[in-house]
Amino acid sequence: MSSRIRSIRLDNSSINPKVLHAQYAVRGEIPVKADKYGQQIRDGHGDELPFNAILPCNIGNPQQQGLNQKPLTFWRQVAALTECPELINNAQLFPKDARDRASQLLHEIGSVGAYSHSKGVPFIRKQVADFLESRDGYSADPENIFLTAGASGGVNLLFHLLLCGEPDGVMIPIPQYPLYSASLALAGSRTVQYHLDENKGWELNIDLLEKSLSDAKSNGTETKALVIINPGNPTGAILSEENIIEIAKFAHKHELVLIADEVYQSNIYDESKPFISFKKVARDLKLDTLQLASFHSVSKGFSGECGKRGGFVEFVNFSEDLLSQATKLASISLCPPLQGQVAVDLLIRPPKEGDESYDQFSKEKDEILTNYASRSKIMADRFNKMDGVTCNNAEGAMYAFPQIRLPQKAQDAAKKEGKSPDAFYCMELLNNTGICVVPGGGFGQSPGTLHFRTTCLVPGTEDYINTIEKFHQEFMDRYRD
Amino acid sequence: MSSRIRSIRLDNSSINPKVLHAQYAVRGEIPVKADKYGQQIRDGHGDELPFNAILPCNIGNPQQQGLNQKPLTFWRQVAALTECPELINNAQLFPKDARDRASQLLHEIGSVGAYSHSKGVPFIRKQVADFLESRDGYSADPENIFLTAGASGGVNLLFHLLLCGEPDGVMIPIPQYPLYSASLALAGSRTVQYHLDENKGWELNIDLLEKSLSDAKSNGTETKALVIINPGNPTGAILSEENIIEIAKFAHKHELVLIADEVYQSNIYDESKPFISFKKVARDLKLDTLQLASFHSVSKGFSGECGKRGGFVEFVNFSEDLLSQATKLASISLCPPLQGQVAVDLLIRPPKEGDESYDQFSKEKDEILTNYASRSKIMADRFNKMDGVTCNNAEGAMYAFPQIRLPQKAQDAAKKEGKSPDAFYCMELLNNTGICVVPGGGFGQSPGTLHFRTTCLVPGTEDYINTIEKFHQEFMDRYRD
Repeated sequence: MSSRIRSIRLDNSSINPKVLHAQYAVRGEIPVKADKYGQQIRDGHGDELPFNAILPCNIGNPQQQGLNQKPLTFWRQVAALTECPELINNAQLFPKDARDRASQLLHEIGSVGAYSHSKGVPFIRKQVADFLESRDGYSADPENIFLTAGASGGVNLLFHLLLCGEPDGVMIPIPQYPLYSASLALAGSRTVQYHLDENKGWELNIDLLEKSLSDAKSNGTETKALVIINPGNPTGAILSEENIIEIAKFAHKHELVLIADEVYQSNIYDESKPFISFKKVARDLKLDTLQLASFHSVSKGFSGECGKRGGFVEFVNFSEDLLSQATKLASISLCPPLQGQVAVDLLIRPPKEGDESYDQFSKEKDEILTNYASRSKIMADRFNKMDGVTCNNAEGAMYAFPQIRLPQKAQDAAKKEGKSPDAFYCMELLNNTGICVVPGGGFGQSPGTLHFRTTCLVPGTEDYINTIEKFHQEFMDRYRD
Repeated sequence: MSSRIRSIRLDNSSINPKVLHAQYAVRGEIPVKADKYGQQIRDGHGDELPFNAILPCNIGNPQQQGLNQKPLTFWRQVAALTECPELINNAQLFPKDARDRASQLLHEIGSVGAYSHSKGVPFIRKQVADFLESRDGYSADPENIFLTAGASGGVNLLFHLLLCGEPDGVMIPIPQYPLYSASLALAGSRTVQYHLDENKGWELNIDLLEKSLSDAKSNGTETKALVIINPGNPTGAILSEENIIEIAKFAHKHELVLIADEVYQSNIYDESKPFISFKKVARDLKLDTLQLASFHSVSKGFSGECGKRGGFVEFVNFSEDLLSQATKLASISLCPPLQGQVAVDLLIRPPKEGDESYDQFSKEKDEILTNYASRSKIMADRFNKMDGVTCNNAEGAMYAFPQIRLPQKAQDAAKKEGKSPDAFYCMELLNNTGICVVPGGGFGQSPGTLHFRTTCLVPGTEDYINTIEKFHQEFMDRYRD
């Protein structure tokens, strides 16, 4: 045997550089540190810390330990019955509508332990089509619908089809949900940024879209698609119908695939701003060549069933040939998880008035949505009262994205630690309070501005905000210029 | 508005060409046709067909409709209890060990509706480490273990880390499971084929590995990894310990990442050939720089819970920095489905002697494995009696991969239809009998040979083989030279 020292084939010097470049702050440095604190507490060494528990506000994960949003009873009953079909006749434990739903789904699926069609169970796709038809007033074809592992699975599918590396690009909002920038980095393609106007409630200005696209063109970027997140993440802003019309026309004019991230369509707190889908507007406008991919998920809304990994995408104006390629691509990972697919069915077919579960379901749903709305309002009000902090009211979604103005001394201290000022602030917040939020840099922010994103998922929001306020005041006092 | 005709941005002329190149025959043309027949039968137009039902033998999907392998009772009870924790105290319906397991898992997980850590629930990873330690007699670190959405999810993760497009390559067996060739096509990297010796029971010849690697080198290929499937898919062959030692040394010598697809480790029919893991051999040989990634899945074995999308990978001899990158990459799709993770726990911690569920679990397990073994034997025996067909005995996994020698006239007829002869044969089989199998070309086969893959999952294997035999005889008579 040779005596030379063998080298390691795969390490960070030989890794696919696209992976190195991808960033995903929602689960980045600060959440990783929070995990370590959490482990320290579980291991019984929490005494050394200035807090008793980690409060995970870095991600929209309502059922997480520490937040503990109760799952919807009807959803879980149907899920349990699909796991144990022998309980379907047990009328003592399960309401009739849950038993009927489980029977119906199992009749179509067979077993939740079987691979389904790679696009998802045909029956559930048909239900999704009916849901879209009744939502938008326009027909939907089940063959254009793919069930996916969360919305992320759908975005991953579309990006694989769409992007060929350099010099392809996709327009994304700033701030954005970092799935998009990370997926673009993995594809070796470019982000084409357009900025939302914080001073006008995170409004989307169509002139800025035009400018961003033409700048990209002069940089040699082949811009292929436009991502719109409505309701906005992290902004919480809801687009007006007028704005949606402009955007659809813009995408149509420039032959961009319109990627409509509509996963927060059930999270609307401002009754004067109903959710309007891009599908409806595109059909209203008869934009027959506008290619639209609209995403939805069981992880958000009021269900918050993130762990199920369920979602769907509707492809509008894509050819049959293209969808065959999409099906082939989906088939390589076989199929989305079956309980995720069952959850999609539950998402789009809630109990109806008169059904045995209707009252309980409605009560659970209303309680969750009322909580989200009131917490969002409390957060914005309280943030706006803090020294150097401003925060737009969230009209929807499940986040607040306050802007923080930090003293020069704090910025210098951050620099000394090799951190951006927002990351420094958020790390200090974690170290002092156990509260885990994400620095604005993880979503993108206009130059010279600093933010963080938190969620409206914390029960006892007053206490939570009191803790942040106390930290913030101490932080500002410590670093005051 | 301009009057020029707008074009469609994304169609098969502008699609990512890597997607066009990827092939996945397990769900390819023939299964798609079978789906259409299935729909025709469900729609009440089956009378026009020469069969009553589709028999899906294209994929290892035991619980599929038409095969209907019953799920393991203990697994489903625990799954249902994690969905509906309020049933955990119901001693009338659920055995104590199932209730205890669900309690323990929920204590660790919180809710199956929450995102977990992107690598999977830490507690379950710890259990996997204990399982590996007891299987191999060597320690395993939970930090090296990633829970994944089936083994496919793990392979996808590793290929993303490892491959940088051209001129990277990975050695794969011929025949292989097409996940590997498809994933390489998507990465824009090369397949480096090595042929298994059908005449010696699909033996892996180390000289052919050496030759294949050196040929690749002279083609300018940067070969980074070696895929071994043991027990083999589609071959059903089990590697001897001697062979495993040679392979490990080969990978070590050439600094290749060893990708050990060991998802059929519980599917062993030949008692003289126990499963030996690459991890054990690598540790026995003290190959401290050999990088090994070993995959396992809940979809195979005797559980067959494909729809759960559960699995895991153990990374051996990868740096902490590299694993951090892997974690970041996993985090972009958030986490594997929670019921898949629960299933992994059940896979590696079956009921123990003395537990309330032990007897029933053992009975169910034994029945499934005995069926697989006896059906595999029946299939090989009967295939070997057919005109022009030879078939190695499957020692493990869940497939038969018979070689078929077709008359020239059949090959000419295939050519006329623009099909390869094996695809032509399999399509005729489907059209005439409703039996759906996969042509050997989907897995790769030595030049001049033709095969198909079927599964050992059909109840009533005698009837099944009788149908194939009748078809085969008629086919051979029709095309006899």
